[in-house]
Amino acid sequence: MEQGARGAVRDVLDKALAEGRTALTAPEGRGICQAYGIATPGEGLATSAGQSAELAAEIGFPVVLKIVSPDILHKTDAGGVLVGVKTAEEVREGFDEILANARAYDPDARIDGVQVQQLVGGGHEVIVGAVTDPTFGKVVAFGLGGVLVEVLKDVTFRLAPVSGDEALGMLDDIKAAEVLRGARGAEPADRKALAELIERVSRLVTDFPEIAEVDLNPVFADARGAVAADVRIIIGEPAREPDRLPREEILRQMTRIFKPRSVAVIGASAEDGKIGNSVMRNLINGGYQGRIFPINPKAPEIMGLPAYQSISDVPHDVDVAVFAIPAKFVPAALEDAGRKGVAGAIMIPSGFAETGNVEGQQEIVEIARRHGVRMLGPNIYGYYYTPENLCATFCTPYDVKGSVALTSQSGGIGMAILGFSRTTKMGVSAIVGVGNKADVDEDDLLTFFEQDDNTKAVAMHLEDLKDGRGFVDAARRVVKEKPVIVLKAGRTAMGARAAGSHTGALAGDDKVYDDILRQAGVVRAPGLNDMLEYARALPILPAPKGENVVIITGAGGSGVLLSDACVDAGLTLMDIPPDLDEAFRAFIPPFGAAGNPVDITGGEPPSTYQNTVRLGLADDRIHALVLGYWHTIVTPPMVFAELIARVVAEEREKGNVKPVVASLAGDTEVEEASEYLFEHGVVAYPYTTEKPVAVLGAKYRWARAAGLLS
Amino acid sequence: MEQGARGAVRDVLDKALAEGRTALTAPEGRGICQAYGIATPGEGLATSAGQSAELAAEIGFPVVLKIVSPDILHKTDAGGVLVGVKTAEEVREGFDEILANARAYDPDARIDGVQVQQLVGGGHEVIVGAVTDPTFGKVVAFGLGGVLVEVLKDVTFRLAPVSGDEALGMLDDIKAAEVLRGARGAEPADRKALAELIERVSRLVTDFPEIAEVDLNPVFADARGAVAADVRIIIGEPAREPDRLPREEILRQMTRIFKPRSVAVIGASAEDGKIGNSVMRNLINGGYQGRIFPINPKAPEIMGLPAYQSISDVPHDVDVAVFAIPAKFVPAALEDAGRKGVAGAIMIPSGFAETGNVEGQQEIVEIARRHGVRMLGPNIYGYYYTPENLCATFCTPYDVKGSVALTSQSGGIGMAILGFSRTTKMGVSAIVGVGNKADVDEDDLLTFFEQDDNTKAVAMHLEDLKDGRGFVDAARRVVKEKPVIVLKAGRTAMGARAAGSHTGALAGDDKVYDDILRQAGVVRAPGLNDMLEYARALPILPAPKGENVVIITGAGGSGVLLSDACVDAGLTLMDIPPDLDEAFRAFIPPFGAAGNPVDITGGEPPSTYQNTVRLGLADDRIHALVLGYWHTIVTPPMVFAELIARVVAEEREKGNVKPVVASLAGDTEVEEASEYLFEHGVVAYPYTTEKPVAVLGAKYRWARAAGLLS
Repeated sequence: MEQGARGAVRDVLDKALAEGRTALTAPEGRGICQAYGIATPGEGLATSAGQSAELAAEIGFPVVLKIVSPDILHKTDAGGVLVGVKTAEEVREGFDEILANARAYDPDARIDGVQVQQLVGGGHEVIVGAVTDPTFGKVVAFGLGGVLVEVLKDVTFRLAPVSGDEALGMLDDIKAAEVLRGARGAEPADRKALAELIERVSRLVTDFPEIAEVDLNPVFADARGAVAADVRIIIGEPAREPDRLPREEILRQMTRIFKPRSVAVIGASAEDGKIGNSVMRNLINGGYQGRIFPINPKAPEIMGLPAYQSISDVPHDVDVAVFAIPAKFVPAALEDAGRKGVAGAIMIPSGFAETGNVEGQQEIVEIARRHGVRMLGPNIYGYYYTPENLCATFCTPYDVKGSVALTSQSGGIGMAILGFSRTTKMGVSAIVGVGNKADVDEDDLLTFFEQDDNTKAVAMHLEDLKDGRGFVDAARRVVKEKPVIVLKAGRTAMGARAAGSHTGALAGDDKVYDDILRQAGVVRAPGLNDMLEYARALPILPAPKGENVVIITGAGGSGVLLSDACVDAGLTLMDIPPDLDEAFRAFIPPFGAAGNPVDITGGEPPSTYQNTVRLGLADDRIHALVLGYWHTIVTPPMVFAELIARVVAEEREKGNVKPVVASLAGDTEVEEASEYLFEHGVVAYPYTTEKPVAVLGAKYRWARAAGLLS
Repeated sequence: MEQGARGAVRDVLDKALAEGRTALTAPEGRGICQAYGIATPGEGLATSAGQSAELAAEIGFPVVLKIVSPDILHKTDAGGVLVGVKTAEEVREGFDEILANARAYDPDARIDGVQVQQLVGGGHEVIVGAVTDPTFGKVVAFGLGGVLVEVLKDVTFRLAPVSGDEALGMLDDIKAAEVLRGARGAEPADRKALAELIERVSRLVTDFPEIAEVDLNPVFADARGAVAADVRIIIGEPAREPDRLPREEILRQMTRIFKPRSVAVIGASAEDGKIGNSVMRNLINGGYQGRIFPINPKAPEIMGLPAYQSISDVPHDVDVAVFAIPAKFVPAALEDAGRKGVAGAIMIPSGFAETGNVEGQQEIVEIARRHGVRMLGPNIYGYYYTPENLCATFCTPYDVKGSVALTSQSGGIGMAILGFSRTTKMGVSAIVGVGNKADVDEDDLLTFFEQDDNTKAVAMHLEDLKDGRGFVDAARRVVKEKPVIVLKAGRTAMGARAAGSHTGALAGDDKVYDDILRQAGVVRAPGLNDMLEYARALPILPAPKGENVVIITGAGGSGVLLSDACVDAGLTLMDIPPDLDEAFRAFIPPFGAAGNPVDITGGEPPSTYQNTVRLGLADDRIHALVLGYWHTIVTPPMVFAELIARVVAEEREKGNVKPVVASLAGDTEVEEASEYLFEHGVVAYPYTTEKPVAVLGAKYRWARAAGLLS
């Protein structure tokens, strides 16, 4: 925005702030809009009945009259609005009437006059607004006016500022999107003009952090443009930007934490059942190859390793200090660790903010910050990093190497991750507890996993974000390379939020989270088990190169359910061209159904599965396969599994690399067959048609966000 | 409806039918509405410009003018509508104008004149309609007009006729229901008048089956009443009512089928790998105690049992004949079985309608019908009924007795049921394949299971219903006693349907199914795995007596996710009264959170779980418990499981019978603990917060439908 426009806005805000006001008057709001090129109806402020009639004649009838008072926010309630006033005489009478109403409503209200405004209408009634979200800061909103937005909450949010393309995307991101395109014979809106208006609002609140909320409601959008008929702007103290360390700095410390040359265990113990004992055992038995320094003021040696009274006494550099001592001893020990120059303090102890000890937590945060130590926790189980055989935790060791990194804000969820991993033999690169997140949070971890070649996907359980923008920035970068799966708990707990605007009232926590996480390219898991399954499956599925999904099934019944699941997962069932249809038909019985699903029918031998699946993998127009298997004597489960694993491997050799998922219906042997397939890169589940397709859908969501689909 | 009204409608329909018309004219439609007490705007038919002006003066200005022609269905397209005509002079001009437009649009159209109609509007614009659904017959629809119904498809369906209460329920069953109650300061509609209008439409189409579609669009509903501004009625051949046997007759045959004193196996074989061999083996090894008659023209004895050349040769009564012979031999053998007086023909063979052999299937249906034999299949795996140790199937035997009956339309899904049952040790009363459903269908099975004391819940996979009304009737009866779970496949395949009305276009298969299954009180499962889990869990959970759900959790993280899941499942988290809150607080650490979830915090001993869970079971105001367990050394998984099982059993003894579900987060020991809990009547799952709550939600859906909740 040019300097003049900014200056004009600055002046209005300074005046209001100087007067201690939080709500701008309508003329002030409209002045700001005009400065930012946001169209508003022709209008003027009248201080007498005569002046109001003159203004109306200039603007053109009909007009709207509105009371202007900094003390009356809800003008309609105060009887301060008259719509569709048609003649000069009516305008004069109207002026007197609303003035009288306003005085009756609030005798103490300062009244600046009456606004005379061009009556706009027709076209589509939409709402454009902006709020200051506690997590994400400035956020811009768009929805269709009236019932759609207010009753059905059909509204969409984005981080401000938005680009023109992002704003256009918002128009399509509401359920009633068709309406603006002219559904039901209505005039289509000028989408570009509307998107530009959204963009301008987003820039306005970005340029002026003290603008807390903007509400343009309604905006009338038709084929000729978009006009904001009513403007409400609320100002306040700008939110403080969170501190952010430079990326290189984060990476340097995180690398020392995940790949430490040495680990000290503060509170190491030889006594069974102690946390400091479990940590020592897990480090040693987990196979960690760096140096381990037990710290214990009373023992000269623990588990065969020389112990030190204090970390200060360790005659080597120490990268990581794992704390296994009660909360009250932490500050002093953390000072020592800081002076020693550790990169990471793994703060297992509880007894901080989660039990109400907020000051105690603040104290250790300050100690860590003073020494440049990054602190994980407090109140965590620790962390695992399998490429280094590092189990810095009091839980049981876990050593199945793989390529997904998981993090959890809750210890219980961390334990579920561990159990699920073990039972499904899920290969992981890291499992990290973030607990109270007093210091290290998800963006720090994403910054490390982004460049960590051992990690091909990241899955995070979180209940809140300390720095929503920091997270989105990090996620956007990571998503270009690898999927980021997020389980955001507290979805349905709509934060009770004091809102001074429609937009504010609509910005329930979860809707904002949902839209913005999507904008960041994150794959959101609807529940815990989904997060775990996505984490397990996404790294082993190759990325699809296009949207054409084909179902090949031995059970017609599974085919129907798999089709349902594909639609639910936002997948596109390929419209199979005639030549391909014919090619499939050549392999299946005459009463089988080609088309999509390709129904090979129930009693077929392995060769039918083999031929059709090979065709599906080899044909370039097909981008992903969903298989439905039906347990028969002719093609038993393990025969199917070995066959599919072989065909998929052979075709991969030839360069036909595509995601393949499978649903196995049958007796219990299908469980072993599913496991075998999973181990061979085919995501397979028994007794469910939904799960394999949901996982493929998650992979597609990521692939789209990463720009991999043409 | 009184006789006169019916007569008036009869006359209009007869005239139109006599003229070979399928669409009624607007005046005809309005005449029918008037006969049924459905308010329409004041109006009249004018055949001259002068007459139109006179009529308008009588009705009152403004008016609407509409062309009346049986040949012009889309009046607006033909330029045949003028809205808001304000003076007599304008009416005269308008008359001439639309006549000219209509002639230009279709020079051959018969034109009966111009309808002069009171201009109604204001209030709420709604749509009320009725269609003839291929599955359910007459169905009535309701939605809000305009964008809501046409873009967002916010519409709801019910079987016609509806009662006044059902019609009122429809008003609340759309997403935008608040609007009619006066959301956003709008005038609330007269709900009673609107419901009555819906009821009348439903009676009209019920009384006159030849009315194929009714479209009242828009209906203007305000505080004074509801007026149908536009009426479109389409007539056609009435659909044939499906044949229905008397309930006693169905029950008599089904009882002979499920509890047969004797079973013949047609095509019994001693040769391994043959279907007739598997069936024999399963009958014998399954432990069936009735007589078994192998039928085989070539063998004197099979598996130690005397064999017969034909079923006619069996010297005893035969209740059930299991067919294990190729399709081509079926008709003759079925004739024999019919003559022998069997109650049920279990038609395993494929090669009928599913392979295109529709005539062959029709042939055996006719044979069966002629002999009064009920036929299951063809193209099925057979059926199991565990109380009789009956495995009349070629699949492997299954003998875990329990109280859920499962049916499947697809063999693949049947196999998935079998595998899932075995791996989860799910106790079943029956597993039944219905296959092509040439004769026995879901209503027949429901009629049996309704009165079968061995069955406490029914779960059905279905792709279509032969007789939707028959199913709803049966389901409504059964649901009063036991849950009916339905997995309806083909949810998302919107049948391409030629529709002559808005209502018709809105009646996509699945929306109609969904609304009507709900109306029948059925618990619909969203996917295969959900159906299986509901089937496994619902019979063991006691029914709740009220809506107050309380979460007690050791992991705060699980508590948040469990709360999310409760909201998703339509459960009500109890607002805990102060005295109860205090009672919980007495058992948990000071930094734990009472309220709901009750967060007992992570490191607590078994006694904390015990005290809080016992309190939750004992307090009468709480109706269901959701437990979140966190694996710790202090309270290991099996300690938790045994403790909870014991407390639940003890409280049940005292009469505190409530559903309890649990989510276990932890290392792999939680799997064994979950199994233990399941076996002791607590529905528990590891690694998921969603599943236990979804199951509880399903139980609640049934309890509400059965009228068990106050």
